[in-house]
Amino acid sequence: MAISDAYTQSFIQPRSALLMEMEQFAKENYVPIMQLPAIEILLQLLRIQNPKTILEIGSAICYSAIRMAETLPQAKIVTIERDDTRIEQAKQFLSRSTVKENIVLLEGDALEVDVESNYPSFDAVFIDAAKGQYKKFFEKYSPLVKKGGILYIDNMYMHGLSNLDIKEVPKRKRTMIRNLHQFAEWIIENPDYQSSFFPVGDGLLICIKR
Amino acid sequence: MAISDAYTQSFIQPRSALLMEMEQFAKENYVPIMQLPAIEILLQLLRIQNPKTILEIGSAICYSAIRMAETLPQAKIVTIERDDTRIEQAKQFLSRSTVKENIVLLEGDALEVDVESNYPSFDAVFIDAAKGQYKKFFEKYSPLVKKGGILYIDNMYMHGLSNLDIKEVPKRKRTMIRNLHQFAEWIIENPDYQSSFFPVGDGLLICIKR
Repeated sequence: MAISDAYTQSFIQPRSALLMEMEQFAKENYVPIMQLPAIEILLQLLRIQNPKTILEIGSAICYSAIRMAETLPQAKIVTIERDDTRIEQAKQFLSRSTVKENIVLLEGDALEVDVESNYPSFDAVFIDAAKGQYKKFFEKYSPLVKKGGILYIDNMYMHGLSNLDIKEVPKRKRTMIRNLHQFAEWIIENPDYQSSFFPVGDGLLICIKR
Repeated sequence: MAISDAYTQSFIQPRSALLMEMEQFAKENYVPIMQLPAIEILLQLLRIQNPKTILEIGSAICYSAIRMAETLPQAKIVTIERDDTRIEQAKQFLSRSTVKENIVLLEGDALEVDVESNYPSFDAVFIDAAKGQYKKFFEKYSPLVKKGGILYIDNMYMHGLSNLDIKEVPKRKRTMIRNLHQFAEWIIENPDYQSSFFPVGDGLLICIKR
């Protein structure tokens, strides 16, 4: 094993039995949860920022919501999921978690569900959802982010597709990649946000609202 | 070019003429300054943390000190360098910088110079200096970090050496690598710090003081 990989591995924190069970469940059921080194980085960023209110788009089985809630015991987390099977699985896991009081699971499509009426603003928004929809998510939810707040946008590498040259990307996926590129260019040039790209995990974009 | 490399490049911010000149100078004179994608990440982390006082160990030509001062106009930066040639070059560049009032250059060996008498505490300490000395730097300077403050430690990959298996590392460098490993293991297990490793640039370790 290369020394660098050993490093990355060695900084992965021990987790509770429930979290380990969720990781195993995700692996066996092909649920896309964040890779361990990437979630360690997200959690460290959240420790530095110390948000009190977090919105997550894309709960899956609530693995990352539970980890965020455990890391920031003072934070309230609202998380949105649209897939019925995932919602049921998430509810099961949440019910067994010690941080369930700090997590609200909203059911529905993030582009349709009404978040604003009950939760008008957030310190942090974490987008980890359907590819190619980033700009729509951003347009809907960035107004809810407080000044100085942060949008964390995962999967900018699109599960490794971005390691290729555009010519090598399968044709049916090129539009998705091009949309993502357009989003990246748009956000870089957006004067309302100070954006930076972290080449970690599946590619993490960090946009601070000015 | 792979899409992922294009991303990383596209998020590099435009810099002033002075900074571009310093980058060119560093390249021509083999001065080890931080790589551009890595410094963008460090600066974004500092924007999130928003420290008011920063100590830097290893000024080189003050490139990173100037960039930190430009990014955080409210921050006071103390930076230490021991190499006489670098100190002279740093002074020249600093004198032409618009942020020179916010930077104090201390001359001497970071393990010997007296920082504490004039600057008793810092919100952030950035260590970017001689390899194999990390634990000594940490032991001397971590007491000056405020509770909740952060130590940023660069070069944990040792300029790519860490991409190798230990068996492939040249024998004369193995002790240095082993020292670094011992430091990494020690900091992971140190209950006074919440540490996380960011596999960016030449490897960035981030330790939050509890």
